[in-house]
This record gives sequence, structure tokens and C-alpha cells, in this order.
Amino acid sequence: MHTKPITYLTQRLAQAVDTELMSPAGGFSIDQLMELAGLAVAQAAARVFPLQPKPPGIPPTSVNRVVLCCGPGNNGGDGLVAARHLAHFGYTPIVYYPKPTDKPLFRNVTQQLRNLDVLVLGSDASSTIDSQLQHAYFVVDALFGFSFAGPIRSPFDDVIKKINESHKPVLSVDIPSGWDVEKGPMDAHGLDTPYALISLTAPKLGASGYTGIHFVGGRFVPPAMARRLGLDMPEYSGADQIVQISGLKV
Amino acid sequence: MHTKPITYLTQRLAQAVDTELMSPAGGFSIDQLMELAGLAVAQAAARVFPLQPKPPGIPPTSVNRVVLCCGPGNNGGDGLVAARHLAHFGYTPIVYYPKPTDKPLFRNVTQQLRNLDVLVLGSDASSTIDSQLQHAYFVVDALFGFSFAGPIRSPFDDVIKKINESHKPVLSVDIPSGWDVEKGPMDAHGLDTPYALISLTAPKLGASGYTGIHFVGGRFVPPAMARRLGLDMPEYSGADQIVQISGLKV
Repeated sequence: MHTKPITYLTQRLAQAVDTELMSPAGGFSIDQLMELAGLAVAQAAARVFPLQPKPPGIPPTSVNRVVLCCGPGNNGGDGLVAARHLAHFGYTPIVYYPKPTDKPLFRNVTQQLRNLDVLVLGSDASSTIDSQLQHAYFVVDALFGFSFAGPIRSPFDDVIKKINESHKPVLSVDIPSGWDVEKGPMDAHGLDTPYALISLTAPKLGASGYTGIHFVGGRFVPPAMARRLGLDMPEYSGADQIVQISGLKV
Repeated sequence: MHTKPITYLTQRLAQAVDTELMSPAGGFSIDQLMELAGLAVAQAAARVFPLQPKPPGIPPTSVNRVVLCCGPGNNGGDGLVAARHLAHFGYTPIVYYPKPTDKPLFRNVTQQLRNLDVLVLGSDASSTIDSQLQHAYFVVDALFGFSFAGPIRSPFDDVIKKINESHKPVLSVDIPSGWDVEKGPMDAHGLDTPYALISLTAPKLGASGYTGIHFVGGRFVPPAMARRLGLDMPEYSGADQIVQISGLKV
């Protein structure tokens, strides 16, 4: 468990870090960052919700079902990449992606999911989401990330409501969806406090009161950049891509 | 340790897998595949050569020095990405990259390395490579991969000779450089049998007689594709990105 002080980012600082990483001076492509972020999400999910044994006589895809709710931006893309890794880990991801982003990377990751026989549901499947949630082992909330500024627009208001009503354990990606990135759970329409959270790059101010199982992932910020921005970054162990910073040790 | 039978790929089949993954039907970008490959290389390196404690009173960069020799193609790119991850893990990578590839991804990863204060040496530093190798904890051989067809051209003949003469433990990426991808160590000018090897996607026929510490990495081949091509792929454990298939257990 990580115990040293860590900087919680304002929305503006989170955006500045992201922008600089993907600038010519930073040298990162969105493909690279999203791959590492998605892998970190999947590894956190696997740590919190270990693969369950598949009892004989029942279809193997009826256990270890994970519903990943993916939003229209990069947070949703992290969820898509996480779904691919979870499929390789042996889970059965079901992706709900009602507002697919029309960019090559997002189309291609969706194609990768189809090649793994992952069910990718669009807006036409919104009426079946309750049922998918009911059969889930856990839920990944990849609806909104550090760019979220509200209000929560349709259909995501409904998705958040259904996740809350399912009472399934949730792993949120970067910030629980609908929470203010700096102020936390302000809006009654936001996600209930999730069972687990994985902050990407560094936690955001809105998660500073979060005491659940909290990981940080996204091990790619150069120390010189962190120093220049005055950031106390989490220290990872060995070759790990995630580090736990609060909550029951998993 | 993985004990089930695994397919060793011909050069042609390795190329077919790579081509299909990056086709529109496969949906992968080179950025994604190289990121996962490079991470797997770095994680194998960290497993075989654990980070050594830094004794007080000596410069921290004088221990855990890793010389990564990177070739002109994608194998070299995997080495560059591995160097970035090794820097984050706490190693001091020194990259020798005498024939840099003039493509944005390769330029950008080199930029990422500079942002981590990683020394990236070009052809003008060839005379200092002996000295860099002498001070290395271990060497990563990322000169040639599954596309290699010989002969070994300058300056890589000399680099291989110097690695051999250094007697440092080597981790080779995909296939020991200079080995025939299908027939193994045929050429007296190739790399001596390395201490460790990480095959990417699946091992190549040329490594079938290799009995050292052998990992497979690159956990991204869809099972349906493997079945269609008749491939017995290694089975990874949990959320691991590498799996050991032979040699002393590490």
C-alpha cells in the first residue's frame, strides 16, 4: 500500500498533463496512453474482482461477466481497451457503448473486441442493460473522465441510474461518473460511491474524500515533468502498472 | 511455468499473424502492439534481472544500468519502448540506436526516452559501446526480430560481436539477433546463446532448441484467430503480460 503524500489534480492540471504528454514535446500517441490506461484498468479490475472458478455444467460465459459502460470520450476508450484485456484474462466482458466515437482508434478497438467475441451493445440495446447488469459479477464505469463538466446528458443519466439500481460492485475509471472532477459527489444524479476506483496518471481532487479501494494507474509521467508541475506522484513497485493508495488491501 | 505444447512459428506464419493483427480486420495499430510488446520485454527483464539495491555513496545511475541495443525495425522499436518502461521501473537504460527509423512512432518514443533522461546513443557513439557494455548489469538485444533474413550488415555485425565479447547476460527480444528465424544459431556471426529470451506473440522455430530462460509476451492474439491458423498459444496466468515456457524458474 502506498502511504506517501500524493498530489490530487485539479481539472485544469489533469488536462495540462494530458495535453503535454501528447504534445510533440511529450511524444505520446493516444494509442499508447490509452493502451497503458486500459491495461491498468483491467489489472485493477482483476485484482479487486478475481476470476471465479467456472463450475462444471454451466456455460463458462455465465460467470465472470463484466459489464463495461463506456462513454463517448477517452474515458470510454480506456474502458474499451480494458474490455479487450479482461477478455484475454478470462472474463466475459459485455460492453455498453451507446455513443460510439467516430475516430479510427475507437472503431479499431471495437473491432478488436468483436474479434474476441465480446458483445458490444449500442444505444438500441438500452432496454436490455438492466438485465445485463443483473447478471454481472461487477461493473466498470468508464462513462466520464477528467474532462467531465456536466450536466449528465441522455442516455448517460439513465445508465448511471441503472448502475446505481443494480447494486453491483463498481470499478470507476478516473473519477466516478457524474461526480464533479474537483468537488466530488455533488449531483444527486451521479454514480453512488463505487466499490473501487482507478485514477489515471494521478487522482483528481474530486476523489480526495474517497476511502474505498483506490488504485492509480498510467505509469508514464516523466519524473522531470512531475517535478516541473510540482506533482507528488505515486511510487509504483517493481514492474507493476497499478498501485493501491487507499482502502482495504487487495 | 507453462508446460502445455506451444506452436513454434515459421517466419512466414509470424509475418502472417503480424500482418493480420494490423489489418483493418485485426484492428491493431503498431503503437498498440509495440506498447504491449515493449512492456512485456521490460517485465521479463525485471523478472530475470531484479532491481539491485543502490548502495549509499555511489551514484544511483551506476547500478542497474541496462544497455539496450536497438535495430532499425520494429524489434528495435520494442527495445525503445522497453527502455521507457525500464526507466519507470527504476533501471538506468542506455539505448544504442545506430540506425534510427525515420517514422513518427520511432522518433516519438526516442523523444519519450529523452524526457526520462535516458541516454540514446547513435552511430557516432559506436566506439564507446564496449565501455557501456562493460558497466551494464545486463543487455537487451533488440537488433533483429522475426523479419530478419540476413546477412548481418554493418554496424550490427560489430554490435553483436561486442555484445558477445562483453560476456554480459543478455535478454534477446523475439529471436537472438543473427540467428536464422527458423533454423536457429546457424551463423558464426550471430549472437551467442542468450541467458534469456522473450518471444513475442509466439516463439519462432529458430528458438525451438533454446533451453534458457524463455518467456512469451504479447498477449493480444484473439483465440479465434489462433484456432483458424492452427496455433497452440501459451496460456497466461491472471493479468500477467508474460509467461515463462522454459529454463530455470524465475
